[in-house]
Amino acid sequence: MYEIYETKERITADNDREAARVRQLLDAKGVFLVNLMSSPGAGKTTTLVRTIKALQGRYRIGVMEADVDSDVDAKTMAALGVRVIQLHTGGSCHMDADMTYRGMERMGMEDLDLVFLENVGNLVCPAEFDVGAQLKVMILSVPEGDDKPLKYPLMFRVSNFLLINKIDAKAVFDFDEERCRSYVRKLNPDMQVFPVSALNGTGFDAWTAELEKRIDAWRNGR
Amino acid sequence: MYEIYETKERITADNDREAARVRQLLDAKGVFLVNLMSSPGAGKTTTLVRTIKALQGRYRIGVMEADVDSDVDAKTMAALGVRVIQLHTGGSCHMDADMTYRGMERMGMEDLDLVFLENVGNLVCPAEFDVGAQLKVMILSVPEGDDKPLKYPLMFRVSNFLLINKIDAKAVFDFDEERCRSYVRKLNPDMQVFPVSALNGTGFDAWTAELEKRIDAWRNGR
Repeated sequence: MYEIYETKERITADNDREAARVRQLLDAKGVFLVNLMSSPGAGKTTTLVRTIKALQGRYRIGVMEADVDSDVDAKTMAALGVRVIQLHTGGSCHMDADMTYRGMERMGMEDLDLVFLENVGNLVCPAEFDVGAQLKVMILSVPEGDDKPLKYPLMFRVSNFLLINKIDAKAVFDFDEERCRSYVRKLNPDMQVFPVSALNGTGFDAWTAELEKRIDAWRNGR
Repeated sequence: MYEIYETKERITADNDREAARVRQLLDAKGVFLVNLMSSPGAGKTTTLVRTIKALQGRYRIGVMEADVDSDVDAKTMAALGVRVIQLHTGGSCHMDADMTYRGMERMGMEDLDLVFLENVGNLVCPAEFDVGAQLKVMILSVPEGDDKPLKYPLMFRVSNFLLINKIDAKAVFDFDEERCRSYVRKLNPDMQVFPVSALNGTGFDAWTAELEKRIDAWRNGR
């Protein structure tokens, strides 16, 4: 079961100040928040399902599903037995820190170690709004093309991890992974890149291992 | 050759009033404007290239390439020998009517019959901004999934035509065309749906024939 919560954007909110509040809350509760971003249809939900299954034994996991409308993803997540809240952005094309804060309060952070925020499918606006997460993960899927770093540079600059998803479909599409990586290096030399297939699990060991490292490093540093 | 024009959003602009101005300009110049929208990587540019090649003999064509940054698409278009202008939205995730008006003025509308606006790759914000075009065409690509009408309903509501692109990759993805069409019918019963492959040309005769019909009907009605 899950609740649907209408988190409309408050124009008055100062995003940087609200992001600091989110960080304080995460710190106080000992919760690691991952902001997951991508285009529509790049595979955020399928990636999350597989990631949660891999980490469910180690962490107590919650998911905040942000959508303009609908709750199809929340249904999928609820079936995994994790705590889920569906956030409706009321037309807004991204989550901001204030909406994230209210979503977390509403969901309840007690008894959770790890929360995934599945952001609205969009490569532009979510990149502009720090929600206070400890880790920003973006997905680029093979069918979208290897030139996307050129067109949506900010998303590639601000994210820590890049999952290149649908790598199983590489043969069907004209996607040059090395070219993509070289564009990414120019924008963000620190970005860690993981070719994965959320469909068949390729690359998930590598990505979830690095995610665990980040979570554990943060916990040990608190 | 093409120019790069920085069309930043003017917060003061009233979009509906500006859209009316665009329509007046199109009427005065006898130009049919198509607003082409989709997610990043759904195939707007490849679709446009093939569409332009099909219609180049009948119409004098111009292209406005809108991007947050970069000019990779303008280069592709310029190679076709059509008039091209690259519009930079200055971080904005969509074109609005005022930016469209200034883009058209800058490009010059003389000697053109048909102009394509390739909007910023985004399924949310471009749906909210009428740019004054006579026709709104959206692309959904097969790898994005058949559930996208549920998640981005406004885009499906406001568009006249839906191109379901990358239909050649249908075997690789779990995309149920009939399910997608039934979602679309609920949101927008008037929407015309064309399964196409911009890669191999499947379905292009049907889509370009309907586009020609719309253009000619508008011309005859002026």
